Amino acid sequence: MVKDPNGSEGPTLAQVSESELLEGIFPLLPGGHGVLLGPGDDAALVAAPDGKVVATTDAMVRDRDWRDDWSTGADVGAKTVAQNLADVAAMGAVPTGLLVTLIADPATPLAWVHDFATGLAEAAREAGAPVVGGDLSSAPPGMLVVSVTALGDLEGREPVLRSGARPGDVVAVAGSLGRSHAGWRLLERGVPGRAPELVDYHRRPRPAYRQGPLAAEAGVHAMLDLSDGLVRDAGRVARASGVGVDLSREALQADVAALAGAVGEEMAWECVLTGGEEHSLLGCFPAHVPLPHGWRRVGAVVGGEGVTLDGQAQGPGGWDHFAG
Amino acid sequence: MVKDPNGSEGPTLAQVSESELLEGIFPLLPGGHGVLLGPGDDAALVAAPDGKVVATTDAMVRDRDWRDDWSTGADVGAKTVAQNLADVAAMGAVPTGLLVTLIADPATPLAWVHDFATGLAEAAREAGAPVVGGDLSSAPPGMLVVSVTALGDLEGREPVLRSGARPGDVVAVAGSLGRSHAGWRLLERGVPGRAPELVDYHRRPRPAYRQGPLAAEAGVHAMLDLSDGLVRDAGRVARASGVGVDLSREALQADVAALAGAVGEEMAWECVLTGGEEHSLLGCFPAHVPLPHGWRRVGAVVGGEGVTLDGQAQGPGGWDHFAG
Repeated sequence: MVKDPNGSEGPTLAQVSESELLEGIFPLLPGGHGVLLGPGDDAALVAAPDGKVVATTDAMVRDRDWRDDWSTGADVGAKTVAQNLADVAAMGAVPTGLLVTLIADPATPLAWVHDFATGLAEAAREAGAPVVGGDLSSAPPGMLVVSVTALGDLEGREPVLRSGARPGDVVAVAGSLGRSHAGWRLLERGVPGRAPELVDYHRRPRPAYRQGPLAAEAGVHAMLDLSDGLVRDAGRVARASGVGVDLSREALQADVAALAGAVGEEMAWECVLTGGEEHSLLGCFPAHVPLPHGWRRVGAVVGGEGVTLDGQAQGPGGWDHFAG
Repeated sequence: MVKDPNGSEGPTLAQVSESELLEGIFPLLPGGHGVLLGPGDDAALVAAPDGKVVATTDAMVRDRDWRDDWSTGADVGAKTVAQNLADVAAMGAVPTGLLVTLIADPATPLAWVHDFATGLAEAAREAGAPVVGGDLSSAPPGMLVVSVTALGDLEGREPVLRSGARPGDVVAVAGSLGRSHAGWRLLERGVPGRAPELVDYHRRPRPAYRQGPLAAEAGVHAMLDLSDGLVRDAGRVARASGVGVDLSREALQADVAALAGAVGEEMAWECVLTGGEEHSLLGCFPAHVPLPHGWRRVGAVVGGEGVTLDGQAQGPGGWDHFAG
């Protein structure tokens, strides 16, 4: 037993062999009938019935993307699944596999790694995404990084791009807005008890994955997942499509009201408009199509460019990774 | 202009936006006709003509997997491609796509990132592997991590597993043995000039990717890529197949002789038997099949278990990631 850098006691990664570690983790992870070959060989083999495969990747870094005093290993595991599978859903695809890389200081407690695997497995199982492979690397002191790749299948549908929005489309959202950022604000202020459900959503977002394929079937013109904030991500659709997006203050009022009690009205607007890590889906639907159940209108696609709120220009807001 | 931690001057990641950075990098990266949708949307879309996709992932960490004073950014980029594509080849598949994640301290020189992208692009283009997507994350001070996922297509062939070896099979290698480790030893001793070609191979291994599909077509029973040393990796085949592998001292003599001038005979044997990061392919062929051009016999599959050299038991050797 050694003391780990967090002060807790228990075995660390340095005290088990790679194969012992994997033998402890593999049984936790969900498989699936599309996994033709899972972890243990040089590579995995995953069914791609559509003859094409959707692929995306997203990483999380301790002390950048999470803090150990705010998020457990299980939270991190669940969140990294959500981030990746929201991207798969935003293409209109269903998940077919996850590859999970853990890059860790050997002094990392084994308990953290098991907790991480448990949270990841739970979120992956819920979303129907088998874990098919991964990598383990040791890292210099203090470093803990998780990198996930998600694969998906379009089941015969066309991929839904960011570039298909047309003036007149209804802009709609499936899932919540601003909850993750509001929860983060409460943690930052040291008052997580004021709205534990928001803090919980910050720790473990639960994107409406199944709304991605449903929207694609309904004929959505453009779609993405809200990872960097509504205004910034709507701006991406606007830029890719050569259109403008006008958000409706009235339509967002209920989202703001849901947060205002916990963070105040002004901050609630900031959370709804620019809060990142929500991983809800934003879609632009043809006006004549009834919105699928689970989607609600938040604005309209218009001529011009950029993002407006009731016609007023909005700055980019949201998150830039390397901004100094 | 700021001074970066390595003492060189020039702009850093903190001084450009994510989109500016990507706009500088994307034009460097190879595409391909199988890339139905490349970087820029929520996910990539890659052709999977076989109806199945091979997927593998491998990461590199600065000061664990490379040293900045020994390897350039371009070396790291090329090596991460080699590591991943050797795994694809070892399944008998051809590469169809790479997803590349860079996790970097914002103080990382922009020049390093461009150099990395250039080396990666060169190696990927040579192997016929398009870059289809990736992720950028900022990291705490000093951290630099590269995580790559490779996708591949079997073109109708059965995947070649580690578990198919049978007593009587010929054990053969495509590519060199021990060169990477010998080059690393020369760097460690401060005498890289003694055999620059070995040091170069350590920095940029060049696996014989195309031998993977060729071996699969020739009917190879089992195959893997030599990432952790001949004895350790042969042991993996032995364990997975429930057989033994007997390596031939005589057959390996030429590999040892090629290194002995640079590192001495004893160290040359160590390099050949246990040197990691070579990424050559090890295959077990039915005895009646003529070895494809590019393969040479190094031993035989026998009854029993474990790895022997002329019948003498060998310890595991090679590399364990978290071994304390």
